[in-house]
Amino acid sequence: MSNFSLIDQQHMQRALALAALGRYSTTPNPSVGCVIAHGEQVVGEGFHQRAGGPHAEVHALRMAGEQARGATAYVTLEPCSHYGRTPPCAKALVEANVARVVCAMVDPNPQVSGRGLKILSDAGIEVAAGLFEEQAKALNPAFIHRMQTGRPWVQLKVATSLDGKTALANGQSQWITSAEARRDVQAHRAQAGAILSTAKTVIDDNASLNVRRSELPENVLSALSWQPEAALRQPTRILIDSQCRLQSSQSIFQVSSDQSAGDVWLASGQAYPESQTFPDHVSVLEQLARSDKSGQSDTQHIDLAALMAHISAQNINHLWVEAGAGLAGAMLSQGYVDQLIVYMAPKLMGSDGRSLAELTGIASMDQTLNWQFDEVSMIGPDLKIVASPKQ
Amino acid sequence: MSNFSLIDQQHMQRALALAALGRYSTTPNPSVGCVIAHGEQVVGEGFHQRAGGPHAEVHALRMAGEQARGATAYVTLEPCSHYGRTPPCAKALVEANVARVVCAMVDPNPQVSGRGLKILSDAGIEVAAGLFEEQAKALNPAFIHRMQTGRPWVQLKVATSLDGKTALANGQSQWITSAEARRDVQAHRAQAGAILSTAKTVIDDNASLNVRRSELPENVLSALSWQPEAALRQPTRILIDSQCRLQSSQSIFQVSSDQSAGDVWLASGQAYPESQTFPDHVSVLEQLARSDKSGQSDTQHIDLAALMAHISAQNINHLWVEAGAGLAGAMLSQGYVDQLIVYMAPKLMGSDGRSLAELTGIASMDQTLNWQFDEVSMIGPDLKIVASPKQ
Repeated sequence: MSNFSLIDQQHMQRALALAALGRYSTTPNPSVGCVIAHGEQVVGEGFHQRAGGPHAEVHALRMAGEQARGATAYVTLEPCSHYGRTPPCAKALVEANVARVVCAMVDPNPQVSGRGLKILSDAGIEVAAGLFEEQAKALNPAFIHRMQTGRPWVQLKVATSLDGKTALANGQSQWITSAEARRDVQAHRAQAGAILSTAKTVIDDNASLNVRRSELPENVLSALSWQPEAALRQPTRILIDSQCRLQSSQSIFQVSSDQSAGDVWLASGQAYPESQTFPDHVSVLEQLARSDKSGQSDTQHIDLAALMAHISAQNINHLWVEAGAGLAGAMLSQGYVDQLIVYMAPKLMGSDGRSLAELTGIASMDQTLNWQFDEVSMIGPDLKIVASPKQ
Repeated sequence: MSNFSLIDQQHMQRALALAALGRYSTTPNPSVGCVIAHGEQVVGEGFHQRAGGPHAEVHALRMAGEQARGATAYVTLEPCSHYGRTPPCAKALVEANVARVVCAMVDPNPQVSGRGLKILSDAGIEVAAGLFEEQAKALNPAFIHRMQTGRPWVQLKVATSLDGKTALANGQSQWITSAEARRDVQAHRAQAGAILSTAKTVIDDNASLNVRRSELPENVLSALSWQPEAALRQPTRILIDSQCRLQSSQSIFQVSSDQSAGDVWLASGQAYPESQTFPDHVSVLEQLARSDKSGQSDTQHIDLAALMAHISAQNINHLWVEAGAGLAGAMLSQGYVDQLIVYMAPKLMGSDGRSLAELTGIASMDQTLNWQFDEVSMIGPDLKIVASPKQ
């Protein structure tokens, strides 16, 4: 940090704040902010709003116009070097004749990392990286994870009682946690690229698994205030329905007038009956049957590894999983969960209640799944516990 | 607080710090500290060390000698008004001719509250109460609870995994939590008047349920530094052994050379076989058999209500319960638990693991036991969650 002046720090903080305005809308792209300045004077600023739209640098350069010449550009992420849906930002900065580019972090994709900076420095522009790098990384944990691993960042959400139960013995579970905790869930959904759940959850809880403006916390609404209400992005909803139990009449398939529909993917091991049709925004993935030990296709169960590979291939950065103990147990035991988020209510539901995740066969204490607590906080009357696999 | 000067505040803070030195040794008496001063100058100070020994005021008055005349006495609790094992402190303060007495809180026993202050004011001494009252109350939660309710303050300790399990399906549970968490348990045991557990826990875990100097956290050792090592007080250990399974050879009955034995009470529904004898520090409570529905004595199970009544009658302020899911469930469902302390390890132990407490028959969400979170903190890698019944 010693190479950066107070003015640098001030502009980068503004760029980070701008970037944050995109964090509910840019997926699968990262949230990025940009400020262009001469000394203290800001001449342009902008942030990436949504995939397919202009990058942050383009917004800021448009605002700066001729004043970009000789200026310093502050960007929260290394300017891109590739021709995608928009031309490379590194090139645009060269053409605008900026004198210096400061970025908070380099591109996390190891295949292109550093290329943007090279284009700039080859053009004689002074470059520097690493100012508020941790804050910049915290803006895009899921994007960075996918760039570095090729897999989405998977968060599994569960709501439990103090005695670790997710439902009573008779299956009742509405509601374990408070309205405040459920609003926090809405904030997580709003950031996710996709939500993974099961037909059972949809049918038992009549769940819509969508983002509802009326239930979003105040800080999310304020971050969304730049966009029209109708533009609220809906994560793709991916529903495991191995036995084709879902019907198009379920409320999850309905589109209400005040929000966009959001895609739904149905993950099944077999074809739905011909009589069963779904609206246009619903896609059916029928080829996910698990193979049994003899290599025969088991159409009653889907192959979770095949589904996860499909999700990875679809450029989904952030997968938010909300489901019952069955899927939770499968995801945990197969190592797909990067972060577990437990909303814990101060209730005791009884030893005959249902467990957090179906996991069996742990025969000694050294076989337990070892995790670590990342964060704990109060959300209304409940605890929010964030944990991840022990590194 | 506006009636108290900065000098008053400073002396009362010192008195509170002195009182805290007794918090591992005074039970069943409260921890009390006293400072005697003329203006800024301290002429005497002291704290109550153990039941039967001089009260805090007596120590401070002895130190002050003739200089007590005309001084102000700062006491963390209203001076006592009764003849017990020591004469009333209110009278001693009158005889020493102090000019003013400031106490942090009045006596919590409604039958004597205010009497000490009355003796003082009747003798022409200026009295004031309420300076740092919350801090003074926090020193003696268990004593205050017993004075106000006639029952001990009951803390139930459990160690669970993140998925709410206290043992694997095969019963293994050593160790779920970290050494740091177990040291924190030692600090709680050291404050308790008695520890309640079961023969099953003693037999399965070979538990001694004692306080071990070598495992006490640093802050406890430092609070204990005024007393000789051998004086480490052991809480009374109360073991439910309804089927007379305990043997005198178990390690819990052994007395090691470096610590006092500590009483053990065996709570049973029947007489032990004549061949079964226990050391002198072990008492047997044989009359605790539960009555079955027909009024017959069920010697296989003890009557928890009768045991709790016995414990209350023995002037135990603070009962610390460490046991398995059976006793935990009975204590919780019968409403005996004032505070639940969960040490939660970041492990997943499996849905076939054992639950926190045996509680069944909760048929709807409005029948769950509703608690509230009082505190949450990290202890090493584990969470410590403190909860109490919702007020």
